Amino acid sequence: MTKYDKLIEAAKKGDQRSLGRLARLIDDNEDGAAQIVGKLYPEGGNAHIVGITGPPGAGKSTLVSALVGEWRKAGRRIGVLAVDPTSPFSGGAVLGDRIRMQEHATDPDVFIRSMATRGHLGGLSRSVLSLITLLDAVGYDTIVLETVGVGQEEVEVKDIAHTTVFVTVPGLGDGIQTMKAGILEIADIYLVNKMDLANAGSAMKDLKSMLLMSGRQKGWAPPVLGAVALEEKGVHELAGAITEHWSFMRGSDGLEQWSSRSAAMSIKVALRQSMEDRVLGVVDGNRDEFNEDVRKVSSREETPASVAGRWLAKLDLK
Amino acid sequence: MTKYDKLIEAAKKGDQRSLGRLARLIDDNEDGAAQIVGKLYPEGGNAHIVGITGPPGAGKSTLVSALVGEWRKAGRRIGVLAVDPTSPFSGGAVLGDRIRMQEHATDPDVFIRSMATRGHLGGLSRSVLSLITLLDAVGYDTIVLETVGVGQEEVEVKDIAHTTVFVTVPGLGDGIQTMKAGILEIADIYLVNKMDLANAGSAMKDLKSMLLMSGRQKGWAPPVLGAVALEEKGVHELAGAITEHWSFMRGSDGLEQWSSRSAAMSIKVALRQSMEDRVLGVVDGNRDEFNEDVRKVSSREETPASVAGRWLAKLDLK
Repeated sequence: MTKYDKLIEAAKKGDQRSLGRLARLIDDNEDGAAQIVGKLYPEGGNAHIVGITGPPGAGKSTLVSALVGEWRKAGRRIGVLAVDPTSPFSGGAVLGDRIRMQEHATDPDVFIRSMATRGHLGGLSRSVLSLITLLDAVGYDTIVLETVGVGQEEVEVKDIAHTTVFVTVPGLGDGIQTMKAGILEIADIYLVNKMDLANAGSAMKDLKSMLLMSGRQKGWAPPVLGAVALEEKGVHELAGAITEHWSFMRGSDGLEQWSSRSAAMSIKVALRQSMEDRVLGVVDGNRDEFNEDVRKVSSREETPASVAGRWLAKLDLK
Repeated sequence: MTKYDKLIEAAKKGDQRSLGRLARLIDDNEDGAAQIVGKLYPEGGNAHIVGITGPPGAGKSTLVSALVGEWRKAGRRIGVLAVDPTSPFSGGAVLGDRIRMQEHATDPDVFIRSMATRGHLGGLSRSVLSLITLLDAVGYDTIVLETVGVGQEEVEVKDIAHTTVFVTVPGLGDGIQTMKAGILEIADIYLVNKMDLANAGSAMKDLKSMLLMSGRQKGWAPPVLGAVALEEKGVHELAGAITEHWSFMRGSDGLEQWSSRSAAMSIKVALRQSMEDRVLGVVDGNRDEFNEDVRKVSSREETPASVAGRWLAKLDLK
């Protein structure tokens, strides 16, 4: 039994410290990371992955916190991954928000991890996917991925999450917010938060009519819900809709389709990251030469593409 | 003289149609694209590149439109690249905004191009950099890059633009917006737009005190300005601050530092893109095999990393 096996066994029994160590190894992409993920991968595929996406200021973290509370009542073990520089989970927000999260921070059946270094999924995708594999394999029932994604990422939240909730608020750019290219295509559930604000009713109405026009009524018809997450209003209904969507996915060919799409994305992420690692490794090992190339490009003696060509040759890439 | 040389010559003389054709060739990454950029690269390095960044709904496009008007009074030729799915330039916004842009659409000395397929710079960086090279080389004096970036991108606006303006509005998440990791580090000028809204004064005050706390007063001390872009208020002052920053850059070692940082980024973008092209090429040429691998990952017989390893071997990467 390797030291990783021991950590995995302990994490499965609910030891948060072991789980935290595994998560750090994965996050830092330590030597053992690939080995850990390789061991865990076959055991995954059970958790329900829920993406919560939407613009900064929409109250996603407050909503996630309320959802976690709702799910905990049912005894579920919950993992939260926040890929959001503005998230209170990642320390990016005001004190009040951070305090609201504290209630779950001490719950051994809630694992929270923020990934604050980047605000988008693209650069973080390997870590996010590996951490999901970890939480899934050690027995977390629901894994929440909170992100500011606008449906225009290289790696989209809908390819990582089974169920995607798009959260918006009244008045946040109004039409502009909702008309964003892609927004109407990506989510399974739409939520207008802060329904106590003015124009909340018309924000919901607008969303509903735009969804109708977009023709997304075949198969799963995405509901438009309202909430005041801060007062936990509408959260029970949201949790219900999330469960309903998960049942729909499992009862139709939706899950299989998602599974293929998600696997293809995972392979491409792994490929892209491996190549990036190798390139950066070669650059790091030849710093002086790279700096000289930077000087040449900076002085316009050479183009970035011709320099890149030379470095690719160095990688012995055919 | 190749057909590209002819297009380039015509574009230099102000022929928008030729410029548009070159831009499309670059955008679509046609075979000739690398050749065109290679020809143009040595002739660039003259334009002032201005990044306008900030959250959706901050009124960036209205501001850019007003800035273009201001610069046109001085006879400058302006290029606008909008990497923003919510930008009116890319058709993402409400009718009123789009109409406001029309005034520049017919001006032969204003070149506007939207890049609507992605909302972040990472995936678009090759096209953005190449289009900047094009506009720069054919004689555009100022190139504006409009983006929703939050200072957390793989490719940051500050490595593409000489001068970065961060635009926000009162009440848009208030503290949360401005406290975003990175925001206080990336911009050279901060602008609170929609100063006619409530709390505008305190939004400016907050920004100013946070900048003071962040200790960014050495060298260039980023000013905090106010504007009502829709009424063209504060736009003249913003244009003045942008010019002042450009003078500061050229009069200090700022430009040289920027130039090295930017060149290093350009090389890495070129490297990453070349590799991505090769990977996708190999995957496309072996579709059946890739689909079988997707099935294996989907059924958890194999991990994404082990599949990626096989494909890398196929690329003959050492």
